Order: sequence, then C-alpha cells, then structure tokens
Amino acid sequence: MSAISSVLDRLDQNLDQSLERLFKLLRIKSISTDPAFAADCRSAAEWLVADLKTIGFDASVRVTPGHPMVVAHHDGPAGSPHILFYGHYDVQPVDPLELWEDDPFDPKVKEMEPGRKVITGRGSSDDKGQLMLFVEACRAWKAVHGSLPCRITLLFEGEEESGSPSLKPFLEANAEELKADFALVCDTDMWNRETPSICTSLRGLVGEEVVVKAANRDLHSGMYGGPAANPIRILSKILADIHDETGRITIPGFYDGVEETPSQVLKAWESLGETAESFLEPIGLSIPAGEKGRSVLEMVWARPTAEFNGISGGYEGKGFKTVIAAQASAKVSFRLVHSQDPKKIRTAFRQFASERLPADCRIEFHQHGGSPAIQLAYDSPFLTKARNALTEEWSKPAVTVGSGGSIPVVGDFQTYLGMESLLVGFALSDDRIHSPNEKYDLASFHKGQRSWARILDALTR
Amino acid sequence: MSAISSVLDRLDQNLDQSLERLFKLLRIKSISTDPAFAADCRSAAEWLVADLKTIGFDASVRVTPGHPMVVAHHDGPAGSPHILFYGHYDVQPVDPLELWEDDPFDPKVKEMEPGRKVITGRGSSDDKGQLMLFVEACRAWKAVHGSLPCRITLLFEGEEESGSPSLKPFLEANAEELKADFALVCDTDMWNRETPSICTSLRGLVGEEVVVKAANRDLHSGMYGGPAANPIRILSKILADIHDETGRITIPGFYDGVEETPSQVLKAWESLGETAESFLEPIGLSIPAGEKGRSVLEMVWARPTAEFNGISGGYEGKGFKTVIAAQASAKVSFRLVHSQDPKKIRTAFRQFASERLPADCRIEFHQHGGSPAIQLAYDSPFLTKARNALTEEWSKPAVTVGSGGSIPVVGDFQTYLGMESLLVGFALSDDRIHSPNEKYDLASFHKGQRSWARILDALTR
Repeated sequence: MSAISSVLDRLDQNLDQSLERLFKLLRIKSISTDPAFAADCRSAAEWLVADLKTIGFDASVRVTPGHPMVVAHHDGPAGSPHILFYGHYDVQPVDPLELWEDDPFDPKVKEMEPGRKVITGRGSSDDKGQLMLFVEACRAWKAVHGSLPCRITLLFEGEEESGSPSLKPFLEANAEELKADFALVCDTDMWNRETPSICTSLRGLVGEEVVVKAANRDLHSGMYGGPAANPIRILSKILADIHDETGRITIPGFYDGVEETPSQVLKAWESLGETAESFLEPIGLSIPAGEKGRSVLEMVWARPTAEFNGISGGYEGKGFKTVIAAQASAKVSFRLVHSQDPKKIRTAFRQFASERLPADCRIEFHQHGGSPAIQLAYDSPFLTKARNALTEEWSKPAVTVGSGGSIPVVGDFQTYLGMESLLVGFALSDDRIHSPNEKYDLASFHKGQRSWARILDALTR
Repeated sequence: MSAISSVLDRLDQNLDQSLERLFKLLRIKSISTDPAFAADCRSAAEWLVADLKTIGFDASVRVTPGHPMVVAHHDGPAGSPHILFYGHYDVQPVDPLELWEDDPFDPKVKEMEPGRKVITGRGSSDDKGQLMLFVEACRAWKAVHGSLPCRITLLFEGEEESGSPSLKPFLEANAEELKADFALVCDTDMWNRETPSICTSLRGLVGEEVVVKAANRDLHSGMYGGPAANPIRILSKILADIHDETGRITIPGFYDGVEETPSQVLKAWESLGETAESFLEPIGLSIPAGEKGRSVLEMVWARPTAEFNGISGGYEGKGFKTVIAAQASAKVSFRLVHSQDPKKIRTAFRQFASERLPADCRIEFHQHGGSPAIQLAYDSPFLTKARNALTEEWSKPAVTVGSGGSIPVVGDFQTYLGMESLLVGFALSDDRIHSPNEKYDLASFHKGQRSWARILDALTR
C-alpha cells in the first residue's frame, strides 16, 4: 500500500467526524465586517488553534489591530519543501436573514436533489468548508504515518471578507516565519461538479464608500424642491456616468495596465462551452451587462469592472416621506485585472466623482481595501504536479481557469513573501456564497480532503 | 368694546392654558406614514374630539380605511356664512432620532435666542400647532360671546403626511355635510417673522416608489461582476437621466400644462428681496439646483420638480460587502404646477423608467399619492378681508405668495366640494418641519390665534 492510499482510506473512514468538526466551526458567527461579531471571530480563531494542536501543530492565535490570525507550524522530513496553506475563517454577513431556509449558523446536511447531499450554512463553502479540507488531509496523514510529508505552515485569516486590513502588516512583520517555498490557497471553485480546476488568474479589488453631502439638514421637498441640491440626484449622476452605453468604464486612465487576453487563451476558454445563456440562466438573467463584444468568461476572468454594492439615502422606510436628504452614500468596488494599479484607480475614481459635485456640496470617501490582480505563471512545476493529482482523484482532467473574485492574499504573498500561490478549490458556482442559503456539496467536502492529500503527496514526492 | 377686542383679550389671558392643550396633542405620536403608529393616530383624533366637545362642537371620530378623520360642527347666526376649517393631526416620522436635541414627543418652550421663545417637538409647526390656533380662536369667541360668529365645520385629517389616501373618498361620501361657502386652511408659512402672508398657489404632488429587480438573488460581485446586471447601476441611470444639465426635466410631456408666470407676478416676487443666497444660506447651500435662469422663488412657487426622496439597495451596513444586489429601489416625487396632470406625469415617468430597463430585468412601481397644483383666484372678496385682518394684527401689510409644498386637500375641496380655500399660516421657514428639531415660534402660536379671531370677525361682519 502506497503512502497515499492509506491516507485516503483514513479520510473515507472519518468523514462523519470531519463533518462534526466543520459544524462546530460553522456554528461560530465569525462575521468580520460587522464589529458586533468581533468576539465570535476570536472564538473561531481559538477553536481552530485548539483543533490544530490535537494534530500536533504548534498553533497560536495571533493578535492584530483587527480580527486575529491563526498561525500553525508542523515540521516535515529534512529536505522536504516548506508549504504555506492559507484559508480564512471569517464569513460574510447573513442579511437578508428572512431569505434563508435554515438558520445560517445551524449547519445541516440536506439532500438537495436525489443523490446530491450538501452542507448548509454561512461559511460552509466560503471559506470554512474549504479550509477544513486541508486540515483534515493533514490530520489523516499524521494519524496514518505519524508525521507530515513536508514542513507545513497554516495561515488562517479573519478579515478576508472585510478587505484584509491587517494582512499586509502581519505578513511584513512575520515574513521570516511565514515565508515558504510556495503557498496553497483554497478559496476557489471547481469548473463544475465533475471537473476540478486550478485558478491561474484573480481579479484585484478596490473598495470605496462615497458620501455626498448637500444641505445641512434634511429638507421638506415642497419647500426646497428646485433650489436645493439633492444628494441622491448628485450621487446617481456620478454612478450613472461611470459606464458608457457599451458597458465600458469611463473613468480616465481606468484601463491603464489592462492587457488584451491572448487569442489562444480566449480559444481555450471558448472550448469550455460556457455561454451567456448557461452562465446567466441560473441567476435569472440572460443579457450580459459587461463590455459589449466579449464573452462572459472573459468579462469575469480578464476584464475589470465597476460595481455598485450598496446605496443609501433619504427615507427608506415604509410609505413615503417628501424629504430632500442631507446626504446619500454608495459602496462602489472595482475589480482589477493584469497590472491595473489599485492606488491609481482609487485616485482616478475620487477625482471623477469630485468633478461631478456641485461647488456648494461636499464629498467624502472611505477606503475599503485594495489589491492588485494576480496572474500565475503557466509553467510552474507544482502547477503540473497538482493538476495530475487532481486528475487522478476526479478521473477527469483538471482545467486551468481564471477567477473573477479577489483573493488579496495571493498578491500579498507575492509582494511580501516573494512566493507564488497555487489556487485549488472545490466550491461550486451554485454554492450561493455571500448570499442567503450558502451551501457546500458533501462531495466537495469529501473528495476535496482526498484531493489535498493527493496534492501533498504529489508535491513532496 | 367691539366683539373682537374682548376675544383678543381672552386669548391673551389664556395663552398658558392653550399651550398646555397643545402639549397634550404634541405628546401623541401620530406618525401616519408608519403603520406601527396607527393607534397613536387614533388617539390624536380622539383627543381632538374630546377637546372640541368642551367648546360645544358636535364632534366625532370618523372611520376611514386608513387613519380616522375628525369632523366637528357648530351653528352660527342665521344668514352668516358657513366656513370649513381644515388642518391635519398627523405628523412626519422623526428619524434620524439621534439628531434631535430634545425628545420629539416631549414638547417644551425654549428660548431660541434672546426674546424669541419657541415650542419644540414634532408637529409643533406642521400641523398640530397651526390647527390649534383656530380651535383656540373658536374657544375664546365662544367663551366671550356664548356663540360663534358664523357656522363652522372643522375637518382634521390624519393622513396628510402620507398622501391623503382616504381624503377624496371621504369628501365624496360626505360632500353634503362638509360643503361650506369657503374653506380656511392653516398649513402654510408667514413670509417672515414680522410679515403675515396668504398663499395663492400650491404645487401638486405625484409620489412613486420604483423597484428595479435583476438577478434572482444577491450575487458575489467577483464571481458575477461584469456579466450580471446590477440594479443599482440601472436605477442610477434612470434617475440620472431625469434632469438635463440645465436642471430641466427630460421626461417626455412633463411640461405639458406648465405656464410661464406673468411678468408682473415675477416682478412682485422679485420685490420681496429673496435671493438665491438668502434662500440657500440657512440650509448650508449657495447654488440653486433648479432650472437655470429662474429665481429661487419662481423655482419653488411656479416650477415643477423631480425629487429623489429615498434610495436603497445592496449592502448598507457598516464595512463593505462585495455583493451585487438582487434589487434596488427609490422613492421619487414630482412637484406639479398649474394644470399638469398627475395621472399623465405618473404614466410618463413609468414609461421613461421602463424604457431604460434591460430586457432581462423587471421593474415595479408603487403609487404614493397624487394631486394637481392649485391656483387661487386673485380677486376673491374673502382674500381681501383676510388680508386686512392680518395687516391689522401684525401692523404690517400681508403679502400674497406661492407655496412649493403640496396641500392636496385644497385641490380636493375644489374638485369634490366646489369650494375655494384661503391659505393662511403662521409657520416660519426655520421651523424645520419634516426634519429633526421641528419648532413653532411662541409668537406664531399667540398672534396666530389672534389672527384667526380677527379673520373670523372680518369674514362675518
């Protein structure tokens, strides 16, 4: 029996226990973006440390100005590579709560359709379910072999869903301790339920909150409607001006650093068979809203965007109030690709908005995280090894894809630790991450554990 | 001693008691737009009925599908005119509560500046304070003379701040009972602290709530940003398109029925000395936001507007959430002038918005009240009498003005009861109606009572 087959057997036998552990973690309301849940975030970190110690990791909760990090170390055989595995234990808010079929923090295994079981709950997929895969692979390996196949460092963050404000300083301050030969990151999707994938590009993110302030108080719209500046009107105009009629973003300099995707890559994406219809139908839409003349995969994997994530102003309650609000605000984010510079994008947006402000009004900006896009090298040797390991587990060739989401840590690993990352994840596009009724397929949870064991084996052989 | 001077003396002597009565009414949280306060609205109506009975009115709470009406009758001498007095006992919501210096429902008399006392609290000005002026004038007249100078009907509404949905059917159903020779309405401003005014034009109102719906759920803006329609973007575009760069409204047909104001009227308004600076400075602004080339008084008294009273969508909490919302909504209102047709405006807006909707999205509209503008006849005999009475009380000529606010009841009195209205009010532009820290000058409350007594005297002599 090879080193790996006994580990895989062990994972199969202990699936129920691994589920119980995941459920304990899922029950902790570690919503990082809302300060009301700070204690829950700490509890999640502490739970992880305690669990990792049972495997033999030298694990600790590491204080930051925000939510804590979890760092854990385990030795490996002399001459083995040093691998850093990253995941995040924080989750998105759960509102609107009334749309959840089950309590988001009381996970269950449910049969979604005949033969397809899923784990329900906030964080089941993003990212508690995914990070526990690697923990379970290590646990099984240790149980079977009494050791791990290489030196492993774990880094679990608690602020991924709120822009990772503490990550950069933490990496800088602890670079010596955290630097490894390469990083493994588990926060991405499979191509589909049958096909594993490795992600080689990630969009960056710039988040901005913009607040437009006009009169010094709320006004009666009868008494002042006409002469008085209306901040909702000003804000709407700013937002409406950001896209032209072809879906292109009009902020000057926005496309600096954006490259056209090579035609062979576009062809490979075309061959995946994703159409506008197949991409949009599950979410109830049919017409691509991005730049005209580009495929939906190119829009998500290789084109930048401007999105409006929230807007608020004036009377939002039931009924009607004839008021002109004193202020209105919006949360705006930009997804970046290639070498777009987050700082330049932020500055350009602020100038663009300020130029549209009447001279007697005021505008404020609040920064919510920023990270450049990243593009992994196609010829990395560990990319090939991991692809083979995945192909073996899933009996189907692993595909190389992009991701529209931002995982700032990958850029930070490059910048601060000089380290490339391998992005392998087992989430599915119908996992409803960031939405009500988030779930994670039981198959992802089971075969994901096995996949990581195989990848560890392949990378250290 | 003339009939009026003894009434005025009585009002002077009983000011403290009249304040106590007003405070009782102000303490009732009769917010009509929020269904949570329905019982409070009823309490306010019941309090009024009980008070009016002590004066000798035949008063009753009259059920409607919404908040009740108060109707009260008192006979007058044979041959005297029949006057209908209208006010409303409902008030605006008080949010944002944290901006109030005092509890909005615990009224006080405070010294705002040396020699200037004000009554604080929601409704102190709009409209509980104003409606009680007339009640106190009647009470004093009755106490002094044992009768009233003419037949008087009182109509106090409880839905003025939420679009008066029950008013039209109530007037229709009770036209016989309510029809009088003319109506007196107390819901407007003085020109300034020294100068009384009579309002001869009122803007109409169309209120609409528009909801844009895109995907069937909230989406992760990384995974879907680009291809997925964003309802905040669509809504912003609709709202931004409503005004052109000169402040003119672009909805086709919107200006049908709008007349240019005669030059002699514009000149009279000019002579009032109101400038953009004097109008906007108190609210912290300086640049008129309405149609270019028109004075601020023309903008408010004689030009229609489109205002955005509220907007909501996506993540509005603290921090940031990279979400594409499933829907976004706005509360939009139009102020109408002259013979603009509320129904046509509503239809034109709905078409305008629908035309800007991507074919795979949905749009919903919810109606929130509609009333045409009204324009009173300049040659009405009771206008002259009332102007003289006001001039006598305030020792300063009463001016004839317009009002930017909507008082739908005035149009309804014309339509359903064939009755003209005289609009006399004692509110001031710094009363902060509809805003935190609403107040009513004690001088308005005192001399307002005296003014109504004088007007009653003048109209019935």
